[in-house]
Amino acid sequence: MGGVSVDEAMRRAIELGARGLGTTSPNPVVGCVLLDADGVVVGEGFHAYTGGPHAEIVALAQAGERARGGTAVVTLEPCDHTGRTGPCSHALIRAGIARVVIAVPDPNPVASGGAATLRAAGVRVEFGVRADEAEAGNVAWLTSMRRGWPYLIWKYAATLDGRSAAADGSSMWITSEAARMDVHALRGTVDAVIAGVGTVLADDPRLTARNLRDGTLAIRQPLRVVVDSAGRTPADARVRDGAARTWIATVAEVGAGPDGRVDLPALLAELHHRGVRAALLEGGPRLAGAFLAAGLVDRVVGYVAPKLLGAGPTALVDAGVTTIADAIDLEITDVTRVGSDLRITALPRKREA
Amino acid sequence: MGGVSVDEAMRRAIELGARGLGTTSPNPVVGCVLLDADGVVVGEGFHAYTGGPHAEIVALAQAGERARGGTAVVTLEPCDHTGRTGPCSHALIRAGIARVVIAVPDPNPVASGGAATLRAAGVRVEFGVRADEAEAGNVAWLTSMRRGWPYLIWKYAATLDGRSAAADGSSMWITSEAARMDVHALRGTVDAVIAGVGTVLADDPRLTARNLRDGTLAIRQPLRVVVDSAGRTPADARVRDGAARTWIATVAEVGAGPDGRVDLPALLAELHHRGVRAALLEGGPRLAGAFLAAGLVDRVVGYVAPKLLGAGPTALVDAGVTTIADAIDLEITDVTRVGSDLRITALPRKREA
Repeated sequence: MGGVSVDEAMRRAIELGARGLGTTSPNPVVGCVLLDADGVVVGEGFHAYTGGPHAEIVALAQAGERARGGTAVVTLEPCDHTGRTGPCSHALIRAGIARVVIAVPDPNPVASGGAATLRAAGVRVEFGVRADEAEAGNVAWLTSMRRGWPYLIWKYAATLDGRSAAADGSSMWITSEAARMDVHALRGTVDAVIAGVGTVLADDPRLTARNLRDGTLAIRQPLRVVVDSAGRTPADARVRDGAARTWIATVAEVGAGPDGRVDLPALLAELHHRGVRAALLEGGPRLAGAFLAAGLVDRVVGYVAPKLLGAGPTALVDAGVTTIADAIDLEITDVTRVGSDLRITALPRKREA
Repeated sequence: MGGVSVDEAMRRAIELGARGLGTTSPNPVVGCVLLDADGVVVGEGFHAYTGGPHAEIVALAQAGERARGGTAVVTLEPCDHTGRTGPCSHALIRAGIARVVIAVPDPNPVASGGAATLRAAGVRVEFGVRADEAEAGNVAWLTSMRRGWPYLIWKYAATLDGRSAAADGSSMWITSEAARMDVHALRGTVDAVIAGVGTVLADDPRLTARNLRDGTLAIRQPLRVVVDSAGRTPADARVRDGAARTWIATVAEVGAGPDGRVDLPALLAELHHRGVRAALLEGGPRLAGAFLAAGLVDRVVGYVAPKLLGAGPTALVDAGVTTIADAIDLEITDVTRVGSDLRITALPRKREA
């Protein structure tokens, strides 16, 4: 069996790491490939779930003695602290690894320092291989760790003409079953789902991640967050059922913003404190407008149904824009057909001050 | 040089025919490939512009004596009448063509009969090769000839959240220059551009097909049609300039529909009478709603800009839909990036009675 390049090993490590997406939070996704001195793959691993072994530990266990003198290729700087597991830096040193190639440094002030520890033990450490790709695979976690609040995805569903319901309020179902299943899969990749109390009062959603075919709940459920300034969520709202944890975020608990409603930056800071790294904002249109106006949305995912209504509520209301020059500019990064619908993914462009 | 199959020749004929799109109206686009007895291509032609020679005549002129005993492969049944040019059926017989392979029969009651004339002269005639493809290439002309009113394309431009302007009415420019150039190219393929008087009063558009870079007009301009029930188009409106012909369609001239405004089926019938086979409906939102509610739109082309506004007029108003079950269902047939925007093409699904 021939050897592989470090670049190729990193490609594989990123691919492995992605398998943990949705189950590692509040930890990042990480992949690791171990090469022996001839470049032959002797171990592979990824961080699969919170509290489980780190990618490096899994790969070292697989490699055993073959790791000695070899190279560890990891998507994120190995941790240096004892949390739920021991420090990976020490494990790599003990196994006799001679060189560690890292895509992205660890921005976590608690866990970083792995590279310094490795170097102090005489291990060669290099950064930056396929860094952009590894960064993209971990974008939610890295973004949230660097700035201290969650990576926020705004999801909406609308007709081609931008309506989220018909004139009489009916909206079941604007999008296809395939699109709704895709939304449940998206919920499975985040730590929290956020909705406004207006949506709870109007639609009484469950906000859980479910299999729509048989109704079974995903094993891991995101925290359900209702932005409810005055505490109007009914006691028997579905969002309060036992299927997942729920937080009714009120002004009394979070504090008020300039508009007297729940202060959104404070809400996000509290979510970060509770271990939420990625959150999905699902509605309604005014809450989305408030988050967008504050520049707090990191990604927009729109499910667009091939329907026309010509009347009814729109998917977005009052985003702080009154003239075309102030429109919120996005960059479309992906367009995918999901059932009969389109899923359009877009990233807000950084706004000049 | 080896021979080609009749199927391959038809593919080529359809490709040739498409080159005439936008310049042959009120005639169809037609392509023709002539094969000699060994299947070698000896002539090619397409109908390039109104009043110019038909595809068959061009191909026969190229082939000369080599056409004798050969096969003519044509996208549409050869004409049988003397219009601006002589009947193609007679020309094919005179040239000694032994076999004619046709994709689609001619629905035009004036021009059809070509197949019968050819058969009476002993020529073998076959129909149906690549019929779907040839039909698609001529869909506007065929549709309009079969039912007696123009093939209508509704074009709109909007933000991701369905707004066609900001709250203060500003809309220059929602879409990118590339998208606006694409619209001008689209205008170049139709015989008429339709707008409501509200759009004329609000935006004073030219409604011409232009090169946006240098402002030069396309050689062939669509008829500009203003749907203007009460005749409010100002005398100095740009749409009345000398750049193209203009028709201000009033209730007085066309008649009134049930809502007291210009009767839309009567408007389309009059356009057909004037030789309009394909028309582009450009706005505003209420006129589009009226055409859609009446089931008169054959294709929807939306230019969607990666922007969010959260306020301002929507691209479509009052399409006769009040509840979600009555939404106008479309099928998305194409999604293409045009500059930073998306161009979404969709066809209304036939509605059950």
